[in-house]
Amino acid sequence: MFESNQNYRTHFGSDNHSGVHPRILKSIEDLNWGHSPAYGSDDYTSLVVEKLKKHFKKTCDIHFVFNGTAANVLALSCFANSYHSILTANTSHIWSDECGAPEKLLGAKLIPIASPDGKIRASSLSEFMTRKGDQHSSQVIGVSITQPTEYGTVYSLEELSELRQFADRHGLYIHMDGSRLVNAATYLQIGLDRLTENVDVLSLGGTKNGLLFGEAVVIFNQNIVKDFKFRRKQFMQLPSKTKFIACQFDAWLNTNLWKEISQHSLSAAQNLRKLLTEIAEVKITQETQSNAVFAIFPRRIVHELKKHHFFYIWDENTFEARLMTSFDSRAEDIESFAKKVKELIATTRTE
Amino acid sequence: MFESNQNYRTHFGSDNHSGVHPRILKSIEDLNWGHSPAYGSDDYTSLVVEKLKKHFKKTCDIHFVFNGTAANVLALSCFANSYHSILTANTSHIWSDECGAPEKLLGAKLIPIASPDGKIRASSLSEFMTRKGDQHSSQVIGVSITQPTEYGTVYSLEELSELRQFADRHGLYIHMDGSRLVNAATYLQIGLDRLTENVDVLSLGGTKNGLLFGEAVVIFNQNIVKDFKFRRKQFMQLPSKTKFIACQFDAWLNTNLWKEISQHSLSAAQNLRKLLTEIAEVKITQETQSNAVFAIFPRRIVHELKKHHFFYIWDENTFEARLMTSFDSRAEDIESFAKKVKELIATTRTE
Amino acid sequence: MFESNQNYRTHFGSDNHSGVHPRILKSIEDLNWGHSPAYGSDDYTSLVVEKLKKHFKKTCDIHFVFNGTAANVLALSCFANSYHSILTANTSHIWSDECGAPEKLLGAKLIPIASPDGKIRASSLSEFMTRKGDQHSSQVIGVSITQPTEYGTVYSLEELSELRQFADRHGLYIHMDGSRLVNAATYLQIGLDRLTENVDVLSLGGTKNGLLFGEAVVIFNQNIVKDFKFRRKQFMQLPSKTKFIACQFDAWLNTNLWKEISQHSLSAAQNLRKLLTEIAEVKITQETQSNAVFAIFPRRIVHELKKHHFFYIWDENTFEARLMTSFDSRAEDIESFAKKVKELIATTRTE
Amino acid sequence: MFESNQNYRTHFGSDNHSGVHPRILKSIEDLNWGHSPAYGSDDYTSLVVEKLKKHFKKTCDIHFVFNGTAANVLALSCFANSYHSILTANTSHIWSDECGAPEKLLGAKLIPIASPDGKIRASSLSEFMTRKGDQHSSQVIGVSITQPTEYGTVYSLEELSELRQFADRHGLYIHMDGSRLVNAATYLQIGLDRLTENVDVLSLGGTKNGLLFGEAVVIFNQNIVKDFKFRRKQFMQLPSKTKFIACQFDAWLNTNLWKEISQHSLSAAQNLRKLLTEIAEVKITQETQSNAVFAIFPRRIVHELKKHHFFYIWDENTFEARLMTSFDSRAEDIESFAKKVKELIATTRTE
Repeated sequence: MFESNQNYRTHFGSDNHSGVHPRILKSIEDLNWGHSPAYGSDDYTSLVVEKLKKHFKKTCDIHFVFNGTAANVLALSCFANSYHSILTANTSHIWSDECGAPEKLLGAKLIPIASPDGKIRASSLSEFMTRKGDQHSSQVIGVSITQPTEYGTVYSLEELSELRQFADRHGLYIHMDGSRLVNAATYLQIGLDRLTENVDVLSLGGTKNGLLFGEAVVIFNQNIVKDFKFRRKQFMQLPSKTKFIACQFDAWLNTNLWKEISQHSLSAAQNLRKLLTEIAEVKITQETQSNAVFAIFPRRIVHELKKHHFFYIWDENTFEARLMTSFDSRAEDIESFAKKVKELIATTRTE
Repeated sequence: MFESNQNYRTHFGSDNHSGVHPRILKSIEDLNWGHSPAYGSDDYTSLVVEKLKKHFKKTCDIHFVFNGTAANVLALSCFANSYHSILTANTSHIWSDECGAPEKLLGAKLIPIASPDGKIRASSLSEFMTRKGDQHSSQVIGVSITQPTEYGTVYSLEELSELRQFADRHGLYIHMDGSRLVNAATYLQIGLDRLTENVDVLSLGGTKNGLLFGEAVVIFNQNIVKDFKFRRKQFMQLPSKTKFIACQFDAWLNTNLWKEISQHSLSAAQNLRKLLTEIAEVKITQETQSNAVFAIFPRRIVHELKKHHFFYIWDENTFEARLMTSFDSRAEDIESFAKKVKELIATTRTE
Repeated sequence: MFESNQNYRTHFGSDNHSGVHPRILKSIEDLNWGHSPAYGSDDYTSLVVEKLKKHFKKTCDIHFVFNGTAANVLALSCFANSYHSILTANTSHIWSDECGAPEKLLGAKLIPIASPDGKIRASSLSEFMTRKGDQHSSQVIGVSITQPTEYGTVYSLEELSELRQFADRHGLYIHMDGSRLVNAATYLQIGLDRLTENVDVLSLGGTKNGLLFGEAVVIFNQNIVKDFKFRRKQFMQLPSKTKFIACQFDAWLNTNLWKEISQHSLSAAQNLRKLLTEIAEVKITQETQSNAVFAIFPRRIVHELKKHHFFYIWDENTFEARLMTSFDSRAEDIESFAKKVKELIATTRTE
Repeated sequence: MFESNQNYRTHFGSDNHSGVHPRILKSIEDLNWGHSPAYGSDDYTSLVVEKLKKHFKKTCDIHFVFNGTAANVLALSCFANSYHSILTANTSHIWSDECGAPEKLLGAKLIPIASPDGKIRASSLSEFMTRKGDQHSSQVIGVSITQPTEYGTVYSLEELSELRQFADRHGLYIHMDGSRLVNAATYLQIGLDRLTENVDVLSLGGTKNGLLFGEAVVIFNQNIVKDFKFRRKQFMQLPSKTKFIACQFDAWLNTNLWKEISQHSLSAAQNLRKLLTEIAEVKITQETQSNAVFAIFPRRIVHELKKHHFFYIWDENTFEARLMTSFDSRAEDIESFAKKVKELIATTRTE
């Protein structure tokens, strides 16, 4: 029943609904021999880390962890004490989708900023900066942004620069949740170095780009690197066979594979958007700058449509849907999806 | 440099220094096609879980997590609130080797019990039971034992039964840290059901038995199963591609592979012990009931010996060493190690 | 310099800027003899607690703590686990003025609800109820309201009843922050029993009503009373000489003193409001249903005005000021304040 | 029933079973007029703090909190992060009597050191210093000692100096729990400055020396003073009417009252000890260097004896009793107690 089946359809649920990119899985097989020290203390892991650092063209620390929640919380732990607060979009993963992990593990307060397109603007942050030094108020210590956002939109370099200026003016740190960072780099056609030049600490995601598991925390600000390894262990994120995360990052990021994968999913999303735009009753709700298309379908077709190509209703109140593409999204599935939308709209149309 | 190298030696550092058992890695490859829901909500994961439950022959809940620290902390979270305390051997992983994860994440107190062989005896626990209801004192809520212990010793069924009686008398839960549980089953020649019949919640380890990554929490006591999934997510232990942990457990535990692996490592440890016993200046310090041999070597040879076949000094004060075998321990390495011990003793002997 | 000075002026900073009501202080003196068990285990404290319970006319548990932050956090701890979230007005003390104590100590998430008058309406809560059972989302467990609110407004019995119905429909608990609860009772002219009939757990404040120190947590819902004493101790809120809190509550609440005090401060606030309403350039911004008047003064007079009768600027963005009255507010100070406002407006008026 | 009763007997339960010293209570009455800013921001509190600092003859920060648990946890929070551990006697309050507050609030690990007389010796600490830098192990950051100890014994200046040297060698901080510190100063006949010269942060207790409530945290090490006020607020320990703690410390410590009180209780304890020593069947178990006498009475008399003059059985296993004196211990009660012991021993003697 669960044997390989060439008749499957890719769907649009999430980029972590797909499996492992074959070249990434092969990197694990190739490394699977012999004994080596565990917990990231082996030479191979060190070598890979050194190679990864070159992407950023400046001094940084790189630590592997298991998943995205952990990358975010551990990244924030670099600067946030319990009496601090962190400004973040109310659409962000750390606010909405971590089941309160940051509050529990950091003890800190998150302050949600209304954000219709997933982005935070510097101009909307000033009102939170009035209570510096007031012992009754959690002290704002940083801003957390997602690049690309949970709405598939991408901060421009100008927007990032404005946030940096705001942060510097108020003594704040900037955390970037980059669970799909490479997609933003591909969209903006720049390297990871420029994309992160205004960032203090980065969550660098792998799992949503074809890895089996594994994310990294990249710390640029050398004032906040201290004692990370103890927090990682205590927060239960020290993998014993770390080298098998390292090899995946090596196969993915230290070759052109990351560009291939992100280019493929971005093109797939653009194609999907194009086909949906042509359908009168479908309303596209966000820019498509990454591997996601947000759209509102006529409610009457959604139940049936999801049976053919699974996707999520993103907002139960507005019924906005999210369609995600991934490294293995297939042209025929995108076409068949659009066709099914048209067909269902036609056959369900009330006179 | 890191290409596969058939001339490597297995060493005795730890059973997580070895890689992934080939049949376990193959299970990942076999499942690596198509799309499926993430975060453990796919049908395949459910099927595997149902099969795993049969090992225990009673109602239980099984949840996958990333690593052993997490399995332990999440298992304890099933019964321990912050104002509780947990009795545990001072040699246990949760006391000594989790960098304070239980204290941080549960907010609870661990009380270390002196334990020369890694085991807790019911008789040594009574003195901690005098303050029930006293609001100034963390309330003892449970006992955490490791099976087999960190010293490679194994609790007999009688010892487990005595602990259960003590626990019942005092209203305590029993947690079993089974990061190498299958080794105890193989040593005692019983099934996982009998081995865990006195346990409320179990950490069931995979990584130290040939898995790439992945552990499970098995909850037997149906009074404490509530809301586990929220704690797992909040404690940053919800893997997105969970099915790739499920398939490893399937390949390992739902076939005879677990018996093969544990039998192999136990035999290897017995052989190693036998060879070392024959060397006059080596002192074996613990029973060998699992895949570890604890021994004290003449100090003058340790530095050189570790270069040939790596192992850890377990106790810096007594200089006791730990030698661990694993699924891929090779007879020639064991022999060559013993030979090297003899050789170093001979050549360094002072007149 | 700090000797008693009959020439002092009462100001409008806060109702905790005043001292201790003389009859309350006397209750401490009267009890100050002999030895008795500490930590609330003395007979006298038990007697007072039994008398206090009669105000609520139903089964409840009453526990003393040191301050309001603690009363709130310990009250919320009765139902909120770390993976839960609590809906609260963005003007509430627990969201804005506890320096993140709830997040740190409960590990839970607070969700701020926009609230121009300090109240939450049931109708604005539905949008937060869509993710029940979703493991990625903190589970909404309760609503926390302040009565009277931080804006001095008072929930009507109808509004409370609607919140109760909403809560019951969604399985939520209701916490009431009653740091000035008696003022709402006096305003509504009802007893504490009717005022709290829809509440699961109450923070009952004393310090802002003339006590030296001391608040109480009153737990009505008998399903959530368990183990409170251990959490109080662990959260560092077990007073050793508890009887001296008990006697203050006795002198204040078990006589008519609470009515006297709250009636006095409410009348003082109404008088202040009346005088300010007569001044054209002063804008009253909130209903005056408790002992606070919110108003916007011409900016040019604020600095000078605060020198004469201290008060706080409540909102740095709108420059809204809060004027609080207390048990010892004096008619002459209120008149002199209004007079000073007029005078400053007149003398600073630009041609 | 609870009216003042001149026939009462002082007992030996604890020095917090007595009430408030009359001169301390009077300081509250004297200050009870007018309005002043809350939360410690008033001028009077600042003045008292400046006067208190003079006792220590060096730069320090002093912060008031409500109780001893809080003073200890907040003091430790100055240097302990969650991945740290703290060495402490297994008899210490922070290990045994805070219901796990340090673990919950700091997230850190406490390591109990066996201590028959309540003291820690530098020589017994070395074995815990072997894992510096090991990410699997909570990193030892400090030593917490109690002066005088929970057994009423007092560290000599030499012992403190040895601990300091050990701490400096290993980069550790020293916390002193001084909930009865003044008693040690009186016993050693030195000032608070010499008594604390080797300490980084001090819990300075008032409640057990005749205060109504209130303790202080004194931070000597200027590297760890940062952000204390935010932690105090978040840990729910910011008193709103702080000035009424300040005035008590002023009346107690800035006059000779602290010497009077501690001298009285020490003499009372010495007298009690002397009388008990003369009774053959009573075994004194600890040095009497403070206001406590530890003794083992014949079990057959304990139940009856406690009815006459209450005291606690300190250790349920050994039946060791603790007798504490306080500022109001009376000579006639001490004599009557000793007499009762003799009488009960005589009348219950088995032939």
